[in-house]
Amino acid sequence: MKTIENISRMSTFVKMMKKEGKSISLVPTMGYLHEGHLSLVKAAKKHTDVVIMSIFINPIQFGPKEDFEKYPRDLKRDEEMAREAGVDVIFYPSLKDMYPEGYATYVTVEKLTGNLCGESRPEHFRGVATVVTKLFNIVKPEVAYFGQKDMQQAMMVKKMASDLNMGVEVKMMPVVREKDGLAMSSRNIYLSDAERRDAAVLYQSLKNAEMLVKNGERDARKVTKAVEDMIKSKQSARIEYVKLVDAGELSDVKMITGEIALAVAVFFGETRLIDNTTIMVK
Amino acid sequence: MKTIENISRMSTFVKMMKKEGKSISLVPTMGYLHEGHLSLVKAAKKHTDVVIMSIFINPIQFGPKEDFEKYPRDLKRDEEMAREAGVDVIFYPSLKDMYPEGYATYVTVEKLTGNLCGESRPEHFRGVATVVTKLFNIVKPEVAYFGQKDMQQAMMVKKMASDLNMGVEVKMMPVVREKDGLAMSSRNIYLSDAERRDAAVLYQSLKNAEMLVKNGERDARKVTKAVEDMIKSKQSARIEYVKLVDAGELSDVKMITGEIALAVAVFFGETRLIDNTTIMVK
Repeated sequence: MKTIENISRMSTFVKMMKKEGKSISLVPTMGYLHEGHLSLVKAAKKHTDVVIMSIFINPIQFGPKEDFEKYPRDLKRDEEMAREAGVDVIFYPSLKDMYPEGYATYVTVEKLTGNLCGESRPEHFRGVATVVTKLFNIVKPEVAYFGQKDMQQAMMVKKMASDLNMGVEVKMMPVVREKDGLAMSSRNIYLSDAERRDAAVLYQSLKNAEMLVKNGERDARKVTKAVEDMIKSKQSARIEYVKLVDAGELSDVKMITGEIALAVAVFFGETRLIDNTTIMVK
Repeated sequence: MKTIENISRMSTFVKMMKKEGKSISLVPTMGYLHEGHLSLVKAAKKHTDVVIMSIFINPIQFGPKEDFEKYPRDLKRDEEMAREAGVDVIFYPSLKDMYPEGYATYVTVEKLTGNLCGESRPEHFRGVATVVTKLFNIVKPEVAYFGQKDMQQAMMVKKMASDLNMGVEVKMMPVVREKDGLAMSSRNIYLSDAERRDAAVLYQSLKNAEMLVKNGERDARKVTKAVEDMIKSKQSARIEYVKLVDAGELSDVKMITGEIALAVAVFFGETRLIDNTTIMVK
């Protein structure tokens, strides 16, 4: 495995691989890897010759009061985990290389991004769309892998790739969870012991909601109320949203029918976690 | 020469050319070709194996009161001129193929686009940046050619390609002019005979301004005033702007020094024409 730290060397490598007829996949990450990321690598290895993992903490997707500065970083640890998982190249560009002085170009997706996380993080998805466009242009992958924990992000990237004719297949892979069901996230490390115990309620509340729907509940308000009540029972929890949305458009639903997603964003102490599950109702 | 009318067939063709190791250039146009477009083809032919000309009247770069509906169209005529000039492929996609229902992704360049035409056409450059991104992604050219008549557009595209790591070299070629100096434009066909005669004043006023600067004038206001006075002497002319700007940033200048651009937008009757010249002052 090699680590490439600048854009022009990455481009040279990609050109070489293309010349040799190799297929390329990209696993974009912000580093501080966990099993969720590695599951994407595993899927990528099955389908392409060369797996490139980008590690770049993208400042323009963080709000002014968010955790860009303190976001966990540990390249040595990431390199070991990535090598072990079979990554071929880590792409680790610098901030200055990605956003040189005078940088001015942004990509926005005007659907899928207004609801859920888009409400409290108005610039977030623009930042993601922009950096993913840059990474796609540099790495030129046939396929890119995203995790379903960030469902809204993955759906937006898929829409963007299609709208802009990027020729990249965007695949969304299942959430990978801890033993107690907490979705893997680099931000879990922020949690105190008590918050970490409380955070397991997210998965429990999603499972409970699935059960309610399975048992015939079709009133979205009643289901989200049940989820909210479970989460509120935890002392360190503060709900940002609990929403049932159409799984295609991500717009709020009142009645549960067809393919829907239940998505939650909850603070445990200072740490904002998200999770979701999709539910199919015939 | 062949004409390819949909995106997926264009992609297949491009893939084939890449496999054969051919270099590709793109000349993006809205059709109704003139010598300006053909000069871009000529330059493209010198530097690449395959010259692809796109002909697509891009609705999202027209304002609600602009001339999208009546923009001149004549594919047969364009095909003849393009073949004659040595174009290899005309890419002529449909509206529905380029902007399918639910289309939602846009590219914006936040510098270079606020002044000059950006003031009266707030959505225009977003529309151009978006369609050019799509065309670059479909055609995957090494080089793309733009005319200096649309200087602000060419500069924005260059900035966008660099910011988003598109790997496309953007070349801006000199304005091609009629015998009386009027810049070639598909929109010139809208002009009545009287308006057409009046429109020659644009070039005359630019030349006169160059002369004033050459003779030592450094006060931007005095130069733009002279240009305005010449243009106003024509009955059918109505000035939108006459501006002296920094040729790097396109921001207004008061004193003429370094590399500057003199840019004008003027209505003759209902027809809006633009022109510009760059001036170097040591």
